[in-house]
Amino acid sequence: MKINLVKKLIIDIFLKHGLSKNHSKVCSEAIINAELVGAPSHGLARLSSYCKRIKKKVINPKPKIIVKKISSSVTSIDADNAIGFIGADIGINYAIKNAKKTGIAFVAVKNSGHYGLSGYYGEKVAKKNLVAFCFTNAPPAIAPYGAKKTLFGTNPICFAAPTGSKVPFVFDTSISMINRGKIRRAAKLGKKIPTGVALDKYGNPTTDPKKALVGLQLPIAGFKGSGLAWMIDILSGVITGANHGGKVKDPFDDFSGPQNIGHLFIVFKPNLFVKNYLIRIKENLKRVKKLPKIKGIKRIYYPGENKSERFKINSKKNIYIPQNILSEINKLNKG
Amino acid sequence: MKINLVKKLIIDIFLKHGLSKNHSKVCSEAIINAELVGAPSHGLARLSSYCKRIKKKVINPKPKIIVKKISSSVTSIDADNAIGFIGADIGINYAIKNAKKTGIAFVAVKNSGHYGLSGYYGEKVAKKNLVAFCFTNAPPAIAPYGAKKTLFGTNPICFAAPTGSKVPFVFDTSISMINRGKIRRAAKLGKKIPTGVALDKYGNPTTDPKKALVGLQLPIAGFKGSGLAWMIDILSGVITGANHGGKVKDPFDDFSGPQNIGHLFIVFKPNLFVKNYLIRIKENLKRVKKLPKIKGIKRIYYPGENKSERFKINSKKNIYIPQNILSEINKLNKG
Repeated sequence: MKINLVKKLIIDIFLKHGLSKNHSKVCSEAIINAELVGAPSHGLARLSSYCKRIKKKVINPKPKIIVKKISSSVTSIDADNAIGFIGADIGINYAIKNAKKTGIAFVAVKNSGHYGLSGYYGEKVAKKNLVAFCFTNAPPAIAPYGAKKTLFGTNPICFAAPTGSKVPFVFDTSISMINRGKIRRAAKLGKKIPTGVALDKYGNPTTDPKKALVGLQLPIAGFKGSGLAWMIDILSGVITGANHGGKVKDPFDDFSGPQNIGHLFIVFKPNLFVKNYLIRIKENLKRVKKLPKIKGIKRIYYPGENKSERFKINSKKNIYIPQNILSEINKLNKG
Repeated sequence: MKINLVKKLIIDIFLKHGLSKNHSKVCSEAIINAELVGAPSHGLARLSSYCKRIKKKVINPKPKIIVKKISSSVTSIDADNAIGFIGADIGINYAIKNAKKTGIAFVAVKNSGHYGLSGYYGEKVAKKNLVAFCFTNAPPAIAPYGAKKTLFGTNPICFAAPTGSKVPFVFDTSISMINRGKIRRAAKLGKKIPTGVALDKYGNPTTDPKKALVGLQLPIAGFKGSGLAWMIDILSGVITGANHGGKVKDPFDDFSGPQNIGHLFIVFKPNLFVKNYLIRIKENLKRVKKLPKIKGIKRIYYPGENKSERFKINSKKNIYIPQNILSEINKLNKG
């Protein structure tokens, strides 16, 4: 389907579900971006769950968002259980504004929801010539090191920095072996997942995405990944005022209340300490890129380059929508 | 050897190598701490290399450290090629001071050197009821994803947060499978290293620490660990004004000039956004700790607890110094 048609379709669906025109647009852009950068697990595949949560009154389509200025660098946002994209969009814009003014910004968002890809927000910041950390938590998927029950989310860590080119450095990775969205999408499409990324609910390795979803996902590098997930839960949940410690609700299965996910954005000017940041970062990237490569590797990519190339290619094509997701969308559009 | 004797011995050695009394004390405390928390790879095993660098005039024993106030939250420090502990100590103290005053602090240190354990500085911050990120880079040890030559250091990521108890949450991990200090120490003691953590210079897996040191170390989780190392190199090197992109010199083998390592400390108040941070973090830790445990695990530790317990136990004992390190120390003490 043509990109503009998909965009309009998403806006129409959100309008029908009670969102404002502006909010519908913000959501549509984030979802389309996920499709175009090649992360469909964070794209159209989630549309039905967002709408179901609105219908079940655990996402608020008409939020009264409260922005509290703590200092000229620090802003606190209560997203009033808006769909995650909205709180994140307002939050990242305040972070950019504060950092442009004072050099550094801390912005926390609470009472929010799943906001899509962290890298989407990191990229926005880097394109304004600022550096960003974006943290957000997620529903239980990973067992803390030593535990046999899930508690941490796949909690992504995201860092973005300008490069002086059109393609910023955007590192965005979940601390799980693969991201949960990929497992959900595999389940939806009836595909298998790789070995070594998840266990079933009895603790046995599995390649069945449905068994993985009720079992547990494995973190990267054992206690190191577990510690990173814990750090991100503290940053996004404990410090922001959002849910934490396993209390973030699953967006697909748990309609007993809002998710109350938290986001923390730390944004700053890359030239706080040096005058020639752009020269320095270009030199840094060049040195890595010109290293001798292992067999079969033609080019060393910096984080963000791959997604940017996919975005370019996909922007010239139609968006492929799998049949079962297409029929979900058609149903949603009928209201 | 008794802890106080070791402490005095280290101070004497640094005094003999031209450091001031105060700087000798700061170095001694950091080195003793590494021994007591059970990280001897960052302790006495490094003493001879620090002294050798002073003798070779690539560590400056009498640095003129320049502290530049950028704003009430932001401080830039030129450590004038002091031994790493000194720039880090001054930097972390400014970070604490700025954050106490304004809520948030960014402190960069350049022209510094190896500063020991990141967690040592993180812990200092958390004990002042503040949250910390500590970033530092290191000499080439890890090949970027896709490259067959090392460039990134084992670049640790460190996050610390107060818990309301005497034991703060201190997550401090290198992005390599094991830290380089452990490999160096194994080489010194003639021990083997585990499989799967390093390759020799021909790209073959090795358990020989000497072959690993001239080969390459493996990052955690492939491109994820490689991306984390790159992020930390940008934060500690590109942004601070220090060396980066593979230019940090090896402290043991390369005396062609100072290391010019960089450190970046981001410190902030945990109650920027919430009034009840301590209640929230306690609840968070409790929820994780009471999860059902896997077989053989009696207790789930949060990051920092393990080291704190070892510190308590080791503080009541003598410090064990392997024979070859003891003879190094005796030589150093003779000047």
